[in-house]
Amino acid sequence: MPIPPNELSASEISQATRAGTLSCEAVVRACLEHIATREPAVQAWQYIDAEGAIAQARALDAGSARGPLHGVPFGAKDIIDTHDMPTEYGSPIHRGHRPDRDAACIALMRRAGAVLVGKTVTTEFANVHPGKTRHPLDPARTPGGSSSGSAAAVAAAMVPLALGTQTTASTIRPASFCGVVGYRPTWSDLRLSGVMEAAGSLDTLGLMARSVADIALLRAVLLGVEPRALPAETAKPRIGFCRTHLWENAESTTQRLLEDAASRLAAAGASVKDAVLPSAFTRIPEAHKAVSSFEFTRNFSWEIAHHWDRISETLRNGRIKDGLATTFERYREARELLSACRQTLDQFFDNYDILLTPAAAGEAPVGLHSTGYTGFCSIWTSTHVPALTLPLLQGPSGLPIGVQLVARRDRDRDLFGFAQWIRRALR
Amino acid sequence: MPIPPNELSASEISQATRAGTLSCEAVVRACLEHIATREPAVQAWQYIDAEGAIAQARALDAGSARGPLHGVPFGAKDIIDTHDMPTEYGSPIHRGHRPDRDAACIALMRRAGAVLVGKTVTTEFANVHPGKTRHPLDPARTPGGSSSGSAAAVAAAMVPLALGTQTTASTIRPASFCGVVGYRPTWSDLRLSGVMEAAGSLDTLGLMARSVADIALLRAVLLGVEPRALPAETAKPRIGFCRTHLWENAESTTQRLLEDAASRLAAAGASVKDAVLPSAFTRIPEAHKAVSSFEFTRNFSWEIAHHWDRISETLRNGRIKDGLATTFERYREARELLSACRQTLDQFFDNYDILLTPAAAGEAPVGLHSTGYTGFCSIWTSTHVPALTLPLLQGPSGLPIGVQLVARRDRDRDLFGFAQWIRRALR
Repeated sequence: MPIPPNELSASEISQATRAGTLSCEAVVRACLEHIATREPAVQAWQYIDAEGAIAQARALDAGSARGPLHGVPFGAKDIIDTHDMPTEYGSPIHRGHRPDRDAACIALMRRAGAVLVGKTVTTEFANVHPGKTRHPLDPARTPGGSSSGSAAAVAAAMVPLALGTQTTASTIRPASFCGVVGYRPTWSDLRLSGVMEAAGSLDTLGLMARSVADIALLRAVLLGVEPRALPAETAKPRIGFCRTHLWENAESTTQRLLEDAASRLAAAGASVKDAVLPSAFTRIPEAHKAVSSFEFTRNFSWEIAHHWDRISETLRNGRIKDGLATTFERYREARELLSACRQTLDQFFDNYDILLTPAAAGEAPVGLHSTGYTGFCSIWTSTHVPALTLPLLQGPSGLPIGVQLVARRDRDRDLFGFAQWIRRALR
Repeated sequence: MPIPPNELSASEISQATRAGTLSCEAVVRACLEHIATREPAVQAWQYIDAEGAIAQARALDAGSARGPLHGVPFGAKDIIDTHDMPTEYGSPIHRGHRPDRDAACIALMRRAGAVLVGKTVTTEFANVHPGKTRHPLDPARTPGGSSSGSAAAVAAAMVPLALGTQTTASTIRPASFCGVVGYRPTWSDLRLSGVMEAAGSLDTLGLMARSVADIALLRAVLLGVEPRALPAETAKPRIGFCRTHLWENAESTTQRLLEDAASRLAAAGASVKDAVLPSAFTRIPEAHKAVSSFEFTRNFSWEIAHHWDRISETLRNGRIKDGLATTFERYREARELLSACRQTLDQFFDNYDILLTPAAAGEAPVGLHSTGYTGFCSIWTSTHVPALTLPLLQGPSGLPIGVQLVARRDRDRDLFGFAQWIRRALR
């Protein structure tokens, strides 16, 4: 029996549509039908433009352009502007808002032939107050956030690709919970024009897919460069097993699974050594909080001034309260610490190709009130390094747990190559 | 005879309105009347909301809040989003566009009591294709750009404060040409949420005023912190006279005037030494071009895909052509060079409190087709340091030429203090 088009990867779809063995319309219809079936339980979407997506697919089928994402359906987190769909930033304040242009990332994907199916659910302003999305494998659990709908939609095979963002853990964590590949690029590689700023010195796009090859393909499109296949062979990586000082916040099953994974990678021929970060890195989570809160609170000055009563209590008493209490001196001191840690980490990577580290504390927690613990991401977000989570582990309830891989700044392609090696070794 | 309210500084206005000796309405009306007189010749404004400004001034007079910019009228470059005025980014593509929120900077200024009078003219997408604005002292000359209207409006005493931005020379150069104080902050200090991104790794806000004290006041408001008066006394600065490798691009009069200024500062007791930048800095202008073009071109992917014929030839054959020709490898190499120069410059400043350097090649050139030479700013923009231009020199046609002062990253307050000292010494 052939694989239903909605379960294909972006690379497979693009290959088939470009070869003419599958129409863009058939792919888009398959995704829309699957969304219709699964959406009542998952609620990944803030907005779906079924008619528009079908029309675009037909136009692609009829046209002569054959871009690298020809006919690939995707979703985009609803903090990313679109000229033909509402963009509400996860807040009632912006209900029905219609930007007049596409964000750079949307325009680049559409130029490559991708079809935007709709906008995926975000937490309020990409912070922590949750949206309506549920975990695709267990509706009693959070999908994680803030890119909740993007992770859930890709995991539920509604679309092969989705765009999210990350300021703390907003891509890696939901990808880990939902069981997809999540990627947070080297900071500043991918343009954020038209994407709501949460905290600019930390924000990046976040990419969700079901394979590393798809992540690499999407990254090339977003860089505006010609996609190149990943090398078939990669040298065995020098892996630093980096528990971090937050290790005790990982569940014991997660600890055991990761330690087991490290052993299996060593058995497969990788060099695996314990990697202990310099002590200054223990101060990163607090510094990250100061930087992100200071910037976030100023970014939302308009909402705070005009719509205080429509901001959630969670946000008011969390990020905004923290941001208002953070002095400029404290902000600058925290920013300097993060900057120094970035330099240090560059050197640290002289001894490792990649670091193996937790993506989250464990499986997606039960309950929809919280999107989970963020600690295992803030170190890497703050240091601007590329990070990838692979859905390779399974927790006590049978739900996915990600393995986070981190590389030196600017080594995103190498990260993908080593991730492929690790995926093969651990399967 | 009392000074007309439109000629007062922001600090003077705020002091008078808070003391109750001047009403906000009177200030706003004085500015609007002066705009009505001067605007036909200067054309600084893309949009003026006279009724809205008067209504806001009345509300401020009637209310109890007394913010640090109480009743201070200002203009904002038309790439900065406003919820109650169009924002057109200097392009016919976005004619009539109405954002649904204020940019962070606008919201912070309004919260401080400032009254937005209107949107000032920008070049197309803050790049080089000029808008309609003319030099306030000579309509045959460019006001500079891209923050053309902001500089002209402050110079023409239409408003005491205006917001611009800088990605290359877009604040310092028009401020130098028009004869106002222009300030480009340490990169990333002031939030850009709601401001059109040109090239994110270089973009900052740019502040225009007629005094250094006003710049310091506005900066505090934009940081969301309590304004503090600048120290009355400053130690005599250790000045590095930095001609840069582009010195021959300065007009001979400018060279002579700056050399004379350096001598007078030494005579006034400052330590003045020739400061020669490391040779790697000669590669900055080309690296700046690669980084800004690469980022800019991707940011405007939507406009390029949908409205190619409404983009100026200047932009198509300039920045966009360059950006499309820049590979990711070249971009990254250029980005690394700039990053390395930033570290080097931090050390370089061990020997100097500030650098004295040209703001522009000379007076505003005759002709409205170009906004002038940018070379003297791209080194400082690229290295993320704070820069200030003071209107202290006068060229052969009697028009202003700025003196650019540059300080170490994060030393913006020190820069203001030394600028006050230099202003006094050179007057």
